[in-house]
Amino acid sequence: MNDSNFPGRIRLGMVGGGEGAFIGAVHRIAARLDDRFELVAGALSSRPDAARRSGLALGLAPDRVYADYAEMARAEAARTDGIEAVSIVTPNHMHAPVARAFLEAGIHVICDKPVTTNSADARMLRDLARERGRLFAVTHNYSAYPMVRHARKMVRDGLLGEIRVVNVRYAQDWLAEPIEQDGQKQAAWRTDPARAGGGAIGDIGTHAWQLADTIVGQPVEALAAQLNSFVPGRAVDDDVQVLLRYGGGARGMLWASQVAPGHANDLRIGVYGSRGSLQWAQETPDDLLWTPLGEPTRIVRRGTAAANEAAARVSRIPGGHPEGYLEAFAALYGEVAAHLLAARDGRPAPPDVEFPTIEDGLRAVEFIEAVQASGFAGGAWTALTSGT
Amino acid sequence: MNDSNFPGRIRLGMVGGGEGAFIGAVHRIAARLDDRFELVAGALSSRPDAARRSGLALGLAPDRVYADYAEMARAEAARTDGIEAVSIVTPNHMHAPVARAFLEAGIHVICDKPVTTNSADARMLRDLARERGRLFAVTHNYSAYPMVRHARKMVRDGLLGEIRVVNVRYAQDWLAEPIEQDGQKQAAWRTDPARAGGGAIGDIGTHAWQLADTIVGQPVEALAAQLNSFVPGRAVDDDVQVLLRYGGGARGMLWASQVAPGHANDLRIGVYGSRGSLQWAQETPDDLLWTPLGEPTRIVRRGTAAANEAAARVSRIPGGHPEGYLEAFAALYGEVAAHLLAARDGRPAPPDVEFPTIEDGLRAVEFIEAVQASGFAGGAWTALTSGT
Amino acid sequence: MNDSNFPGRIRLGMVGGGEGAFIGAVHRIAARLDDRFELVAGALSSRPDAARRSGLALGLAPDRVYADYAEMARAEAARTDGIEAVSIVTPNHMHAPVARAFLEAGIHVICDKPVTTNSADARMLRDLARERGRLFAVTHNYSAYPMVRHARKMVRDGLLGEIRVVNVRYAQDWLAEPIEQDGQKQAAWRTDPARAGGGAIGDIGTHAWQLADTIVGQPVEALAAQLNSFVPGRAVDDDVQVLLRYGGGARGMLWASQVAPGHANDLRIGVYGSRGSLQWAQETPDDLLWTPLGEPTRIVRRGTAAANEAAARVSRIPGGHPEGYLEAFAALYGEVAAHLLAARDGRPAPPDVEFPTIEDGLRAVEFIEAVQASGFAGGAWTALTSGT
Amino acid sequence: MNDSNFPGRIRLGMVGGGEGAFIGAVHRIAARLDDRFELVAGALSSRPDAARRSGLALGLAPDRVYADYAEMARAEAARTDGIEAVSIVTPNHMHAPVARAFLEAGIHVICDKPVTTNSADARMLRDLARERGRLFAVTHNYSAYPMVRHARKMVRDGLLGEIRVVNVRYAQDWLAEPIEQDGQKQAAWRTDPARAGGGAIGDIGTHAWQLADTIVGQPVEALAAQLNSFVPGRAVDDDVQVLLRYGGGARGMLWASQVAPGHANDLRIGVYGSRGSLQWAQETPDDLLWTPLGEPTRIVRRGTAAANEAAARVSRIPGGHPEGYLEAFAALYGEVAAHLLAARDGRPAPPDVEFPTIEDGLRAVEFIEAVQASGFAGGAWTALTSGT
Repeated sequence: MNDSNFPGRIRLGMVGGGEGAFIGAVHRIAARLDDRFELVAGALSSRPDAARRSGLALGLAPDRVYADYAEMARAEAARTDGIEAVSIVTPNHMHAPVARAFLEAGIHVICDKPVTTNSADARMLRDLARERGRLFAVTHNYSAYPMVRHARKMVRDGLLGEIRVVNVRYAQDWLAEPIEQDGQKQAAWRTDPARAGGGAIGDIGTHAWQLADTIVGQPVEALAAQLNSFVPGRAVDDDVQVLLRYGGGARGMLWASQVAPGHANDLRIGVYGSRGSLQWAQETPDDLLWTPLGEPTRIVRRGTAAANEAAARVSRIPGGHPEGYLEAFAALYGEVAAHLLAARDGRPAPPDVEFPTIEDGLRAVEFIEAVQASGFAGGAWTALTSGT
Repeated sequence: MNDSNFPGRIRLGMVGGGEGAFIGAVHRIAARLDDRFELVAGALSSRPDAARRSGLALGLAPDRVYADYAEMARAEAARTDGIEAVSIVTPNHMHAPVARAFLEAGIHVICDKPVTTNSADARMLRDLARERGRLFAVTHNYSAYPMVRHARKMVRDGLLGEIRVVNVRYAQDWLAEPIEQDGQKQAAWRTDPARAGGGAIGDIGTHAWQLADTIVGQPVEALAAQLNSFVPGRAVDDDVQVLLRYGGGARGMLWASQVAPGHANDLRIGVYGSRGSLQWAQETPDDLLWTPLGEPTRIVRRGTAAANEAAARVSRIPGGHPEGYLEAFAALYGEVAAHLLAARDGRPAPPDVEFPTIEDGLRAVEFIEAVQASGFAGGAWTALTSGT
Repeated sequence: MNDSNFPGRIRLGMVGGGEGAFIGAVHRIAARLDDRFELVAGALSSRPDAARRSGLALGLAPDRVYADYAEMARAEAARTDGIEAVSIVTPNHMHAPVARAFLEAGIHVICDKPVTTNSADARMLRDLARERGRLFAVTHNYSAYPMVRHARKMVRDGLLGEIRVVNVRYAQDWLAEPIEQDGQKQAAWRTDPARAGGGAIGDIGTHAWQLADTIVGQPVEALAAQLNSFVPGRAVDDDVQVLLRYGGGARGMLWASQVAPGHANDLRIGVYGSRGSLQWAQETPDDLLWTPLGEPTRIVRRGTAAANEAAARVSRIPGGHPEGYLEAFAALYGEVAAHLLAARDGRPAPPDVEFPTIEDGLRAVEFIEAVQASGFAGGAWTALTSGT
Repeated sequence: MNDSNFPGRIRLGMVGGGEGAFIGAVHRIAARLDDRFELVAGALSSRPDAARRSGLALGLAPDRVYADYAEMARAEAARTDGIEAVSIVTPNHMHAPVARAFLEAGIHVICDKPVTTNSADARMLRDLARERGRLFAVTHNYSAYPMVRHARKMVRDGLLGEIRVVNVRYAQDWLAEPIEQDGQKQAAWRTDPARAGGGAIGDIGTHAWQLADTIVGQPVEALAAQLNSFVPGRAVDDDVQVLLRYGGGARGMLWASQVAPGHANDLRIGVYGSRGSLQWAQETPDDLLWTPLGEPTRIVRRGTAAANEAAARVSRIPGGHPEGYLEAFAALYGEVAAHLLAARDGRPAPPDVEFPTIEDGLRAVEFIEAVQASGFAGGAWTALTSGT
């Protein structure tokens, strides 16, 4: 029998992600892919029947299938083989209370983004995680793509020189029509201000901001935004356009849209420095375009000799064998596992392990709030003091 | 002997474009490509020796090689076989006086862009052209690409529904270093405020604006801009980022940069409507991506059955035989020729002939001025009342 | 505790795939990704120490870590909780004896390709699998990509009309230099005729053949081949070029190369019929180009409404969230699991489940042998009677 | 008046290319684009009325509009301002008699391809051109693309090492249906064995061969071909697939098809050597992919610092301003002009001037004949002794 106490794996629980959910299944695959987690408990739905069906379908032991997250936190904390970490994949407005319950029970947290629907909650969680000494990872999953890691390291190593321009976008088309009015489940909560805390800016704009943030490493100091709601009857923004002033001198543009026909999940970035540029697109994630100033553009590919060690660390198979969204998500889980396995043994985390934390999650929520503030003020320039 | 009075061709003169110039040679090829113009006179340089050498090298008759544009206007107007139109390809600050001289001599004008270095001059030229009843074309050449014509017609025919988002950029890298300080001729005048009237915004931002303008057909009503000058010692902007509010409800972003390594001449646009989208990139101009909402993206190609009549009108050879920059520039000249040949015969211009005029040139200069005003005011939103 | 007897999962063993192996790790991820297999036993290496280290590192119970595959077959067959299926991921020459041992023990087989190093062995395995009534899957993994399934269905549904031309290639560059002489493990056995049974034709040409075979559905009746060995000192072919005559009237070309710089794993195919064409490339697997004759090319994308049900069955996440090599490999494992879970319950396999079997594996080996025969005969046309 | 005797231009005549022709108009634009030719005479059609209308529409003097090519050759040879060169753009079967007439009149010849419909005629023309000391250029126009020149030079300079594999194709779709039976003029003569001398192999396969030939510089020594005629009722091949053995050790594949939906004019080549590879596609001709072995692929672009001098010589405008089919055709005309202008002055041709000659044209016809011989013999390997 395959032992769930095998020391090579972290015992994991999940809140949310039951029948019909999208991101819960993604987290489960991500946790499983590299075999560093074993899902052993869950409160997969707030509806008891659905919670039970979902848990059993995943092979959970019946006594570890919960309908209530607070009960789950208490019960698992009391077991000797209780979960070590919990993945929170509920709609956004539930992240804060759930995360709080598990942190208070001494359980590490892996939480979907945006981490909360307001910065006060995010600050509360940050303080609580610090106080309890628990890990709090936020799944800004796009930052774990190998070639994003490659890009980040190139910028840090100065290979692009001084960064001048950042151009990032995240374009989708799935909300180009008012499908939330027809009961589409994903659309319904993601366009509900109460449950989502914002529209395109929170759902995907935050990913775009974070992608730029992780690569460029400069804080945004001010921004001006157009917050658009194009689809009739929609209660949140479905398109947002932002000018950015970075603290290190870079200037940027960010576009996030869910009403852009022809773009399924088109997150892409260009970073332009005094010595060269990088271009990367999430839909073809294994390739990074690098142009050293005055030379031909190079197609730097994951899994080849040209990929640097930061990329190689989170890569599994050779170049030309495409890795995708699930692999990157799994890489983020792998980073968390490396940290937790080390912590369990009292070792320091391996060097170079990195993942977005509640600090980054807080800054993301502050960015969302600044964009909303600017948008509601007719696009006025709005200062941003991050992470305070 | 091939007769320069062959009625199928317009007798053309040129001011500027002598030895070492880039855009003058482009205009000459464009005029010649479809065999509708015959270059017969020129003041190709303000330096008499250079003017003479340049004219003779082009096969001009010695008595029609001029060193002074004003003398050329007078002399050609007096000849029975004098030029019918003049192409003005000098640095920007000379456009206005040269155009004025030829208009006053009753000669049609084809002028490079931006048409003037300030809107007052553009307004003066507009009024003068109206008063004298002369044609005044401005070579916003990118609007003559066949698939831009195709796109324009699709939008006008309502195939994209209501336009929501416009995303246009024009990125280059040739000014990423201060080459103007090393005497590079093109760089020198284009980064000199006195001769250019602006930097990236005037040189290429104006093309980006015009491309969006010709396709979308909505006026920009307000904008907010970051006007950046990244290269040390540079006297003009070399990068500009703009948020746009269109009069018809669309919202847009424009990025023009001359310091973006990896982009040679990357003018591209995405237009997103309620029923579908279009994407076009100047560096692969024969293909237009069209996504009808909810359907796969189609690659619509110039020279095939899928290209509409607006594209076919300005296309020469079958799909897969790439046409490029010179062909599009020639298409613009072809439109002017069609107009002038009809006018010469007292016929109305053929239906569907179109080219940017001094009205468009004026609006382009007003756009430049608004971007500069916003940029100098820290990115403040600036209203734009065009073409008045 | 997570029960390895959870009925939703197949109990799996593995032979080969220990330390330093590539494809063994791929099979394990593929088996795990969709949570339909639990790896519970293994003979991961023929060296006892390596077998033990590898097994324990994967969390196998010590008593189910074997050094000898024959002992493993016997021991597992004797357990009530013994493995239901075995994955064989050894070098090619060991496939036949290992598969035979497990079939004779009544255990289902999942075997890497080429299934054997000669067709006599493949025929023996086919007969044995039939006789014992065991499933025998061959991991021609590329056939499980969603858009390959889409393509296959389109051809079967007649949407391309009569198939005229098939153009398939599989180009790599990792053997462009004699790295096998420097002890690179993968290169060493793959270029050893005794262990590999052939070079590029067996390692990747067989994938190319199978990709065409699964989409086009016509048998190859004759072929002419150039079997090249470009790298000095290499004992097997590293490049092969083949003309193909299909039984249904199509004509084709196949190129497989391991000495083509610039190609990492560039498997791609074009299929041209009287009513349209399809083009697909493994390095960007989510997109399929479909050109209905006389119309623009469409980019049909996995995970969107345009993907047909054959694609949707083996797809997990929405379009624009790229799936890759591991997902396709997992899809093949998922098909096998669906078949085995049904068989375990005495149900028929779900409709539409499909995976390459020993019949396909045999035909692949016959193809390899025909290419070798033609190549050794100076490229002579060679008839091919498949699957007999 | 613009003097047709301007010494900077060659006086040119044309045979064929009247109303409704495609390639004649292309030759005229190509001759005109760089202003090194002046078209002054023509026998544009064998039908007198059409010849007259076509000539006058082009602005030719009435006395230099001919209905008979032989008369034109005589009359022009007798004029002091007679044509120096003639462009022959008739259907293929007329190339030989027309070229002969002009060579015998002492006039240089520029002839479309394939230069003749059989190698005996080509040999006759070669001998005649030698004997009369006249230039005989064959418009294998694709060899004049700047990045083809770049590629050719790289191979010659040894930057790719020893060439191993050549993969070339030319795929079109315009003959996927029997449009010749509906009177389409281009289709009618190109699918008529008497006028075309072959089908896809002659019309486009010859271009593919020549592209490989000019870059690789090794003679084909033997080949095996499938010569297919897929469209019902078609009298010539519409698809051909060839294995190639080069004299220098390279092995190759060539595919030419006019029944491949989705390909408009998709001529492309990959050349793989021991030190790296090149890939080029005619539909995006400004970019050449260069992969030095073991390094990332580089996108080498025309008009940038990375393009070598062989590319720069035949390039006009900066990178990112796309040049296309007409520019490359014009570059070939420019090479001929450079040669003729030097010859007129008694100077040697400038170094590096190169264009396909009757020697190349003869070898192309020999290649066609060998492919046809192999195809008619069921794909048998056929030796090829070129240029004898």
